[in-house]
Amino acid sequence: MAGMRPVFYVSDGTGITAETIGHSLLTQFTDTRFVTDRIPFVDSVERAREVAEKIRLAGETHGVRAVVINSCMDGDVGAALAESGALMLDVFAPFIEPLERELEQTRQRHIGRAHGLVDFDTYHRRINAMNFALTHDDGQSVDYAEADLILVAVSRAGKTPTCVYLALHYGIRAANYPLTEEDLEHDRLPPRLRQHRGKLFGLTIDPVRLQQIRQERRPNSRYAQFETCKREVAAAEAMFRAERIPTLSTTHTSIEEISSKVLTTLGIHREMF
Amino acid sequence: MAGMRPVFYVSDGTGITAETIGHSLLTQFTDTRFVTDRIPFVDSVERAREVAEKIRLAGETHGVRAVVINSCMDGDVGAALAESGALMLDVFAPFIEPLERELEQTRQRHIGRAHGLVDFDTYHRRINAMNFALTHDDGQSVDYAEADLILVAVSRAGKTPTCVYLALHYGIRAANYPLTEEDLEHDRLPPRLRQHRGKLFGLTIDPVRLQQIRQERRPNSRYAQFETCKREVAAAEAMFRAERIPTLSTTHTSIEEISSKVLTTLGIHREMF
Repeated sequence: MAGMRPVFYVSDGTGITAETIGHSLLTQFTDTRFVTDRIPFVDSVERAREVAEKIRLAGETHGVRAVVINSCMDGDVGAALAESGALMLDVFAPFIEPLERELEQTRQRHIGRAHGLVDFDTYHRRINAMNFALTHDDGQSVDYAEADLILVAVSRAGKTPTCVYLALHYGIRAANYPLTEEDLEHDRLPPRLRQHRGKLFGLTIDPVRLQQIRQERRPNSRYAQFETCKREVAAAEAMFRAERIPTLSTTHTSIEEISSKVLTTLGIHREMF
Repeated sequence: MAGMRPVFYVSDGTGITAETIGHSLLTQFTDTRFVTDRIPFVDSVERAREVAEKIRLAGETHGVRAVVINSCMDGDVGAALAESGALMLDVFAPFIEPLERELEQTRQRHIGRAHGLVDFDTYHRRINAMNFALTHDDGQSVDYAEADLILVAVSRAGKTPTCVYLALHYGIRAANYPLTEEDLEHDRLPPRLRQHRGKLFGLTIDPVRLQQIRQERRPNSRYAQFETCKREVAAAEAMFRAERIPTLSTTHTSIEEISSKVLTTLGIHREMF
């Protein structure tokens, strides 16, 4: 355990905000190895005292004090956590005062509000978008007219996870169109897509990577052969170029980054949930 | 547009970190209405100058200066953004120096690292978990032995979105088991679930809400009748109690919160992607 620095994401809600910013911060320090733990729903001083003891013990075990990324809104809870002796980084504190001054009001204290109670409309929009993504996956029961956007790609290039992410986090109705061998014999858009040109975004992928993914799915099939992957990817890329469809390679790109680029390129503005 | 305060989430990556913390901060100020925009991939001073001009104009339009939640790591980019005259809130700046002191090292500058380039293993784990969630949705082709956890509930109580969220963000292999009418005639666990007791988590829901959701899906069906919803929910809750399955109501709970509570309750520790 030597050389490991314990890090705790502590929150009165889910801990997602604390973990998101904490993760970004830690990636800036590559000389240290971190062992991280998320402790959500710390919403009372009593619970904070228990958690502080756990944090103190982790410091003892690792021979170095812990780092706490704290997103609890209540100052008393924060003070109880600080009893652990850890380095306390409070993700909201530095911004509250400048905002209070700028907006000329005192903040409300909504514990766990960020990802907490939800209204029915929001929930409904997310779920409907997700159902849309799942029922329009791989060309099933397609009504592209209802789609906010349509991802076009060969099989296993990353369409489904991107569609689901867009639905879950932005409430976007994302359909996808899997390019078939027949589609790929032509350099033209498949007829069903032509009337939706403004909604199209092409995904591509390194054929070597595609071959790995397909091999895992259907080992030693023709579908998974490198020659098949190479031919399909080349044909898809040629079609995207000929039809001027905006395109992104998913090979080294996270789902978050693909999603963000698709929205920016198509000019779709939505708040994250 | 009077009374609206423009807010920009500006990032050298996807903007997810900036929007996550910014959203949490804004929920603390309920007297102001905000109009928000995310501007990702601002990775040069030149691009930052264009963005600053856009931000300045938004302030002019709304008659009040904008707020910028900035997660760009590069100081020169931040300085160019500040030329907009907006209130600048830099989400990383307050924490870098204390961390540098604590860890006794200077931070690396990895632009867009947080949600940027990904290694194949991570991507693979997410995608495999997601495929698992989708192919194990609603009791299809079930191999519960491979599941990290199994959500149990009546139809439309929130199993699928939670499974997909757990897969996408934690790489968790989450299966789900839809309770059938036959299952609900008994107060006992369905036989197929008995050997996986430690992996089970029950979701429940207010019958009124359930009725709304089902009504939208299959209008005026027996499935969507209030009496059906009420009976199914009561039977499911009785079974969870009798079998001591941990349970959560999804009625007023976000997908993030459900996911976090499921993991905490089952003692599953995973880092978020």
